[in-house]
Amino acid sequence: MKTKIINFANKFTKFADLWSPKIIAQMNDYHFKLAKIKGEFIWHSHEDTDEVFIVINGSLTIHLREGEVILKEGEMYVVPMGVEHKPSAEQECQIMLIEPAGTINTGEAGGDMTAEYEVWI
Amino acid sequence: MKTKIINFANKFTKFADLWSPKIIAQMNDYHFKLAKIKGEFIWHSHEDTDEVFIVINGSLTIHLREGEVILKEGEMYVVPMGVEHKPSAEQECQIMLIEPAGTINTGEAGGDMTAEYEVWI
Repeated sequence: MKTKIINFANKFTKFADLWSPKIIAQMNDYHFKLAKIKGEFIWHSHEDTDEVFIVINGSLTIHLREGEVILKEGEMYVVPMGVEHKPSAEQECQIMLIEPAGTINTGEAGGDMTAEYEVWI
Repeated sequence: MKTKIINFANKFTKFADLWSPKIIAQMNDYHFKLAKIKGEFIWHSHEDTDEVFIVINGSLTIHLREGEVILKEGEMYVVPMGVEHKPSAEQECQIMLIEPAGTINTGEAGGDMTAEYEVWI
């Protein structure tokens, strides 16, 4: 049989660019995406969806207007719909994002860091 | 600020019962659930949704009518809507399930292994 086992570590070997989420799976109309991040992203929000962050490897800081959240490997956080956030990571960090298909990484903010949102690996 | 960081290892210390998924987070109308499993579940399907399995610790076998899939830590699999499956694990295994709120663990099959589906930890 053709299996579709998704191994996160293996998928992370397939790309190197930062802040550019790659789709690894679809569940109904949601996408599971992996991203490598380092440095600071931009402040943005998603007006029509919550967004899940799971740290696979490393440490991720999610800056919020009310403070910041620091996530390590094996931890997740749900950024609620409409809440402004700015991810950052001092060292390269590997994360999984879960959100509706078509969600733009920069949300309502746009700008230079906007990535293609339909790249499967 | 009140953070809502979800640490999988910590959440797994909060329950011991097998085959009884506990909700740890909600994203839009989807639930993230943790479960401890050991032994064999029953054949079932979900007629209205895909279902995501992620192995956090251990080894999970998903039996399908066409064969079986063996998932280890750091691997995920999407069981498509309507596809019959039977999870099993020789040793206790810790998994995360992602599916719409209200999804019943035994799907269309029902029976003694049907768990409460709204238990948060």
